[in-house]
Amino acid sequence: MIVVKIGGSQGVNLDAVCADAAGLIQQGQKIILVHGGSAETNAISEQLGHPPRFVTTATGFTSRYTDRETLEIFAMVTSGKINTLLVERMQRFGVNARGLSGVDGRLMVAQRKDAIRIIENGRKLLLRDDYTGKIETVNSALLDMLMNAGFTPVVAPLALSTQGDALNVDADRAAAMVAGAVNAEELIILTNVPGLMRNFPDESTLISHLPKNGLEQALSFAEGRMKKKVLGASEALDLGVPKVIFSDGRTEHPLLDALGGKGTVIS
Amino acid sequence: MIVVKIGGSQGVNLDAVCADAAGLIQQGQKIILVHGGSAETNAISEQLGHPPRFVTTATGFTSRYTDRETLEIFAMVTSGKINTLLVERMQRFGVNARGLSGVDGRLMVAQRKDAIRIIENGRKLLLRDDYTGKIETVNSALLDMLMNAGFTPVVAPLALSTQGDALNVDADRAAAMVAGAVNAEELIILTNVPGLMRNFPDESTLISHLPKNGLEQALSFAEGRMKKKVLGASEALDLGVPKVIFSDGRTEHPLLDALGGKGTVIS
Repeated sequence: MIVVKIGGSQGVNLDAVCADAAGLIQQGQKIILVHGGSAETNAISEQLGHPPRFVTTATGFTSRYTDRETLEIFAMVTSGKINTLLVERMQRFGVNARGLSGVDGRLMVAQRKDAIRIIENGRKLLLRDDYTGKIETVNSALLDMLMNAGFTPVVAPLALSTQGDALNVDADRAAAMVAGAVNAEELIILTNVPGLMRNFPDESTLISHLPKNGLEQALSFAEGRMKKKVLGASEALDLGVPKVIFSDGRTEHPLLDALGGKGTVIS
Repeated sequence: MIVVKIGGSQGVNLDAVCADAAGLIQQGQKIILVHGGSAETNAISEQLGHPPRFVTTATGFTSRYTDRETLEIFAMVTSGKINTLLVERMQRFGVNARGLSGVDGRLMVAQRKDAIRIIENGRKLLLRDDYTGKIETVNSALLDMLMNAGFTPVVAPLALSTQGDALNVDADRAAAMVAGAVNAEELIILTNVPGLMRNFPDESTLISHLPKNGLEQALSFAEGRMKKKVLGASEALDLGVPKVIFSDGRTEHPLLDALGGKGTVIS
């Protein structure tokens, strides 16, 4: 079992990913796809007159501020557009894909962050009414049921709060939670860079292998978006996933490359 | 088993529908919800600078002209927003709802209309590149699997073409096909009017019961959108659904009212 996280609209070669996935599935491999959608959500939010707002949390991460309107746009773009088109693409490759978000059948239940501490212009602030959350449980029985019936799950990064609200969740960390829940052998995180670099964006500093105990240090040099991927990798390993691979989604064979050891292998 | 079609953003009292559905499900009834989304797709298409275009077909029906961009907006709105928020709402009422569109797991496979004959300014034209279709098969095994596992399916009106393209399908007729496929006892079509009227919008001309053989005549006096509902009713009856009810979705108890015989009962 392999869980593959596909980045938003960041130049990832979707046809190549789907072709690789279809080939592996035909050979008997089980695959779950998890996708993001930040870039496209930003573009459509702008078009709809509700531009995205990003905040820096007190712990140093960049987060989307998700008011209710943003949540609905996020659901529309990730679950409606990106998920549907990815399922359609997999179907064209002969794979009976099946889209769902964490809201569906309570696939992913999260604790809603009632308030997030942010830093703005050097001042600490508390933001309320944020529809984001941290996933606590993944309904692996639902994924097993779908896979046993021959479907390939394609997961959109929404969760349901314990109070019944749809929430925006980080897709890298969602992929990590899913990988842990289904006891995946590998979690492949595809991006538009070759992997984790010690000095981003200098590709000659690509780290080809990172032991688990190197992850904490990696958090210090990982740039912006890569920080959450490092965090996701750490969570997946903690949940018993033996191997996490950060790999380049722009190549002709993104999944075969990753499985062949290209990119950054963390184990 | 009851299939309930919920109109788009037409004033239907969604909380009341979900509360009624939740109550019936708790009593052991199986329910499948099918929804539309035309009105909201129109609004968002306008906002995104791609206004909707409606055409009148040679056979007298009003149809959305769905180019690829419109299809993607339609998927975004129906499958991403309306479906997700309906699933969220059902979850708040304690029902483990599970959203899916016809693309997911090939739930609904349709024949794509390669070209549609339309009438514009009195002239007949042929429109190509239209992503709409007529549903040919519904994967009832997938719906049965979900319901047997305790999930309540919530279906968005997209289908997959035999060539693997996502298609916009009419939600009323999709609900009819689903009702036929799962051998539903009743198909309830909720709208923002009390039912079928002989002289729309004169509510004193509401038809409380229509025999199956009255449907053809009903096609002649049903106004615009109601025409497709009449067609859906006819298809559902042809597929063996014993009873179709057109009922008012704006009341305090839309489903209980419909089951109690309010609206137009066709059998």
